[in-house]
Amino acid sequence: MISEKMRPFLANNSAIRMMFEEGRQMAALYGADKVYDFSLGNPNVPAPEKVNQAIKDILDEEDPVYVHGYMSNAGYPQVRAAIAENLNKRYGTAFAEKNLIMTVGAGSGLNVALKTVLDPGDEVITFAPYFLEYRAYVTNYDGVLVTVDPDESTFQINQDGFRAKISAKTKAVIINNPNNPTGVVYSEETIRALASILEEKQKEYGHAIYLISDEPYRELVYDGAAVPFVTNYYANTMVVYSYSKSLSLPGERIGYVLIPDELEDSATTIDAATIANRISGCVNAPSLIQLAVGRCVDCQADLAFYDRNRKLLYEGLTDLGFACIRPQGAFYLWVKVPEAGSTCGEDVETGADSVCGADGGAGADSEGCAAADGAVGGTGIGNAEDAAAKKKAAEAAFVAAAKKYHILAVPGSSFACPGYVRLAYCVSHETIVNSLPEFKKLAAEFSL
Amino acid sequence: MISEKMRPFLANNSAIRMMFEEGRQMAALYGADKVYDFSLGNPNVPAPEKVNQAIKDILDEEDPVYVHGYMSNAGYPQVRAAIAENLNKRYGTAFAEKNLIMTVGAGSGLNVALKTVLDPGDEVITFAPYFLEYRAYVTNYDGVLVTVDPDESTFQINQDGFRAKISAKTKAVIINNPNNPTGVVYSEETIRALASILEEKQKEYGHAIYLISDEPYRELVYDGAAVPFVTNYYANTMVVYSYSKSLSLPGERIGYVLIPDELEDSATTIDAATIANRISGCVNAPSLIQLAVGRCVDCQADLAFYDRNRKLLYEGLTDLGFACIRPQGAFYLWVKVPEAGSTCGEDVETGADSVCGADGGAGADSEGCAAADGAVGGTGIGNAEDAAAKKKAAEAAFVAAAKKYHILAVPGSSFACPGYVRLAYCVSHETIVNSLPEFKKLAAEFSL
Repeated sequence: MISEKMRPFLANNSAIRMMFEEGRQMAALYGADKVYDFSLGNPNVPAPEKVNQAIKDILDEEDPVYVHGYMSNAGYPQVRAAIAENLNKRYGTAFAEKNLIMTVGAGSGLNVALKTVLDPGDEVITFAPYFLEYRAYVTNYDGVLVTVDPDESTFQINQDGFRAKISAKTKAVIINNPNNPTGVVYSEETIRALASILEEKQKEYGHAIYLISDEPYRELVYDGAAVPFVTNYYANTMVVYSYSKSLSLPGERIGYVLIPDELEDSATTIDAATIANRISGCVNAPSLIQLAVGRCVDCQADLAFYDRNRKLLYEGLTDLGFACIRPQGAFYLWVKVPEAGSTCGEDVETGADSVCGADGGAGADSEGCAAADGAVGGTGIGNAEDAAAKKKAAEAAFVAAAKKYHILAVPGSSFACPGYVRLAYCVSHETIVNSLPEFKKLAAEFSL
Repeated sequence: MISEKMRPFLANNSAIRMMFEEGRQMAALYGADKVYDFSLGNPNVPAPEKVNQAIKDILDEEDPVYVHGYMSNAGYPQVRAAIAENLNKRYGTAFAEKNLIMTVGAGSGLNVALKTVLDPGDEVITFAPYFLEYRAYVTNYDGVLVTVDPDESTFQINQDGFRAKISAKTKAVIINNPNNPTGVVYSEETIRALASILEEKQKEYGHAIYLISDEPYRELVYDGAAVPFVTNYYANTMVVYSYSKSLSLPGERIGYVLIPDELEDSATTIDAATIANRISGCVNAPSLIQLAVGRCVDCQADLAFYDRNRKLLYEGLTDLGFACIRPQGAFYLWVKVPEAGSTCGEDVETGADSVCGADGGAGADSEGCAAADGAVGGTGIGNAEDAAAKKKAAEAAFVAAAKKYHILAVPGSSFACPGYVRLAYCVSHETIVNSLPEFKKLAAEFSL
């Protein structure tokens, strides 16, 4: 008697549980240090010491009724003001306290943003490969997720593909920058092109199209890469942020939604989003950690740790002959499956929906492995279907082969883009060092 | 361009803001100690010192990657096990870790429970007066809230009214025990009668009807009152709990949903609820405070503080001639408005929907003052309409008169039951002491 809407999620959930079970069993069988688990985006870097000190100081200095009590549904005023000031300093913006709504992490932030603007049947566009949970979030409000195939040469945004998918029903667009799972940072050129298409289409259809920029990895960038701050390029932008990665606080569920004054009907939208935060049942972002974050707006996690891992894994794998996208952000390496079939780019050329853009399973998972049960149907796309099946088979074979060497990777299908695997390098450095000889055996098996 | 579904909430929100503004202005004008604000259910008792000590100990003893990291979407196993054990000890139950899903407070817990079971159009029954946010939560999943008029002589459950409102569409029933706003504790007899009707109706309609028991005030009881543990009386029960009141942690957003093995398709329902927790965007209950609560399952807030306030306010007001329900639980006093019109009970006898059961505004607020814009329509209920209008007018006059003496009370309309006000006595004892002479003036004004 559970809700019909929940049923499709249950099947996928069993698959996820199986994978977790498998990892646990492998660790028990071979020893945790002999298992190279690159499947989880759970930071291995501890939160900066300043965060824990701030928590203790707050407990010592402040009235517990205040520290653990209700505050405004949008959050503590001084915390929001501190974040606004920090952003203004870094991005030349002019945000005030009122533009920020503290949320239960970016997951709730995305839900707040979507609940605020979506009517049933509204379309939300995102770009494959993408975090499959987006589909669940959009479905929560009876919206329809529409996906755009990637430009597999760069994994920047496929602008032509994007333009083709916008319709009168498009209410919002979700981007994730720096990107999970590819590690790509969208360039200023990419954001400008995206904004230009959005401006054009807003005029054409006569209504706002909101750009929701999901940025939990904003500070995790390397090689001097810069992440464009999207409100500076497009007025109808909401930025969703989380301290999960930048301060290594994923379990604490603390983040925000930023709604700038430039957004259409900004004051009403801010009010509505604040109410959405309340009536979702969250009520407000957790109080103690919210206060602590307010004292640590200038802190960040140990970037050098990730950068060292990134270089070793990227260089190690490319030396072995694997084709990888060089990551400039986040903590993921996106590796092409050897012997994978035709690329998504080729599918794009046929004009058919490629697997990368096809519907993932109705379910999704947090750090996922729900298979992309392609909804590619209709006539005349037999080749695309064949290519898709071939890719998925190659991907499954590669993931299975990796397991023989105790390497756990998330298949690209979990991000609606088969033919790749994602390796999360937010693990200990030793895990990477020790995994390389195993990757060498895996490479040999695939004749690299 | 905000969602149509969000629009009705905006109007009510302005009313709430006006009330908050008014309170703030009064405090600025007259001094905070000269304003008797009984409007907010924000505990004035600090969290037990053991909670803050547990937080510090956890930070000192445990790995920060563990303390602030992701755990299972259902929560830390040992925290859930500790809560299960505590419940088993107190209620003779046999819960295990698996029966508990840690949530972002009871607000999220109720949303998880409703998202798990509701299909669009399903009816959810609750009992006036009720926390208006229930309506928003049910609407989140396109359910329909159906309300039952109170038995105003006791404010126990009006069982005949309840039976009459159950239909083939009834999927769930929400009770709140001890009750906000009345302070009443539902007796074992009440729960038995409720369970018996539910069993009968389940058979009649051939499907499960879930009893969702919202129990944030479970430990806040006086005069030796016992709160029946509902899973012992009815199998298809989900218990929703929060540490907001019992440990004075409302801002921290920590609670749980309990789904017993006896519930129909229990394992599937637990899985679905765990997924609902994830895809709502909450992902998991906040980690550090979750661990701290796990170390404090035997703690509770200072009951003597509330009891002292309760006695002084109840006795003070009844001595002055006000008609009050003697509260046995929570921290609210439910006071009948002098000169209020005909009672809800009389409306019940006419067979028409009384104001107490009428639809509140589509919006709702956390600690609210959204007016119950009665949806009483149709023909032949002119008397009920008149009575409703009279009650609302009397209530508004009383609330306005109280303000002259700097007394802030929440009108009963905020709980879909005009003709009463709610006084939250979770304030300082001095506030109550100092308010009594002002209540005396108010009583005189109403010729008590």
